[in-house]
Amino acid sequence: MIDKLIDKIVEMENPVCVGLDTKFEYIPEGFLEGEGSALAYAARNIYRYNCALIDAVSDIAPSVKVQSAYYEMYGYEGVKAFYETIQYAKRAGLIVIADVKRNDIGATASAYAAAYLGQTTVLDDQETAFNADFATVNGYLGSDGVLPFVELCKKYDKGIFVLVKTSNASSGELQDKVADGRPIYEHMAEMVEEWGIELVGRHGYSAVGVVVGATYPEQAKRIRERHPGMFILIPGYGAQGGSAAGLLPNFDKNGLGGIVNNSRAILTAYKSEKYAGMRFDGAARQAVLDMKQDILLAFRENGIAYR
Amino acid sequence: MIDKLIDKIVEMENPVCVGLDTKFEYIPEGFLEGEGSALAYAARNIYRYNCALIDAVSDIAPSVKVQSAYYEMYGYEGVKAFYETIQYAKRAGLIVIADVKRNDIGATASAYAAAYLGQTTVLDDQETAFNADFATVNGYLGSDGVLPFVELCKKYDKGIFVLVKTSNASSGELQDKVADGRPIYEHMAEMVEEWGIELVGRHGYSAVGVVVGATYPEQAKRIRERHPGMFILIPGYGAQGGSAAGLLPNFDKNGLGGIVNNSRAILTAYKSEKYAGMRFDGAARQAVLDMKQDILLAFRENGIAYR
Repeated sequence: MIDKLIDKIVEMENPVCVGLDTKFEYIPEGFLEGEGSALAYAARNIYRYNCALIDAVSDIAPSVKVQSAYYEMYGYEGVKAFYETIQYAKRAGLIVIADVKRNDIGATASAYAAAYLGQTTVLDDQETAFNADFATVNGYLGSDGVLPFVELCKKYDKGIFVLVKTSNASSGELQDKVADGRPIYEHMAEMVEEWGIELVGRHGYSAVGVVVGATYPEQAKRIRERHPGMFILIPGYGAQGGSAAGLLPNFDKNGLGGIVNNSRAILTAYKSEKYAGMRFDGAARQAVLDMKQDILLAFRENGIAYR
Repeated sequence: MIDKLIDKIVEMENPVCVGLDTKFEYIPEGFLEGEGSALAYAARNIYRYNCALIDAVSDIAPSVKVQSAYYEMYGYEGVKAFYETIQYAKRAGLIVIADVKRNDIGATASAYAAAYLGQTTVLDDQETAFNADFATVNGYLGSDGVLPFVELCKKYDKGIFVLVKTSNASSGELQDKVADGRPIYEHMAEMVEEWGIELVGRHGYSAVGVVVGATYPEQAKRIRERHPGMFILIPGYGAQGGSAAGLLPNFDKNGLGGIVNNSRAILTAYKSEKYAGMRFDGAARQAVLDMKQDILLAFRENGIAYR
């Protein structure tokens, strides 16, 4: 799956991931329709909004990241919209990252892995629950918590991104603590490299990747230098303060090695002056194209190009 | 909510939490009924099984812990069963811990907090999504990831348990790394104490508690000594190897300070020789009573008693 993701990035010359962190408040009033309980109504419209966005970007973006928090807040109806969004995006040819940051131990980690990447057995049936292509995982619990995911990555050709250095201001409180001469996030990156060593694809990157915030280019640089085969999911671009130039350390000279997520600036592009007068889906498409251009310009200025 | 939990523990003289990690495979064939898709069928029967268990233990156990992984593996139908289980347990008077180990940053952490402890706004409606009493949280991301939960604990009288030292064999890979002379899990405990300082209840314990595995009594002892106001959710008893004597360091001389989860040995008690011939719910009830007796015996032998 990591090879498919990279192939798509190269084919579209676009390392942008569209973040579907869709809050009900983002949806223009005129687009709302339907009835039912408040949560079901919200969930239904979030799904409709996502479908329109997916239709608008599926030929220019390789991937979407669906953030489970924004669905769970609408209860199980929201989780149904999460499921349906994943399936709709996959049918549209997008590679889907379920941003669930799950973590637990042993059998429980296996249950999460089955939910997002694998299959569930009921009597003689084998069913998929959410069936994303990638999931995000929190590795605080150690190998027991991550290996069940890695196992299913092998079995079903999937991938994971393990949190290493998150984009938020307070991420250093724990992640930057220094043990044995290295910050905790580097220890985590070393563990991730070991977990993914058998899953390196033909582009040289492992299906077991990491999350490093766009807000921490210095840290990205160290990780890229120490772990050349580590693919990086990069959140925190735009609204959180990450810049195109700051992204460069994540990438190799062929423009590979990372995918840059942006959620709010794409989802709510229609509200910005820059895209005034455009419908939300057209504005989102243009915002993806503009973000792509910003990144490709920074690439070009630094001798990085897809080959 | 931490006061209510402690009141109930004292009233029932029982620090046992019943873990509803209900896998479809645990349900006796004769109990199964209904039709529909495989996942919906499994989810429905898991909910029915949980209801019978809740009915069997609600007068002797203060609390249940519902592990979301075992519901998510059955897809959104499973998540509906998770929701319904929480509501059924609350109606039965049990205090419900949603074991979700959620973690994210800023607005996304707020969305998770709203989902499990708070409310969601849809136009003019305020709705609850899952509405548990407590949630478990992973603090790897630092304050940004946890404070949104703490805020809702204040606002809605709820509580959280932050992962400190987990019960699994490999928990030390990251959690035991030593920084500034102390292991990472102790740094985490210190952060938790700060986060919860304004939420200390009348028993002297904060609504912002921690998770420390029953498999690590030495570590529990250090945490209890350094953080006398920290309430501990203790998984890993029984199947994972934690013993009644090993639990003692978690508790103060009045038997307060912790709640001990047990899942598999209760859920599948009917399969053990000890409870041969009993129906699953009666066996579960007896397993809870036996576990309570084991703990109270260890208490008594060490001069610990509810007062």
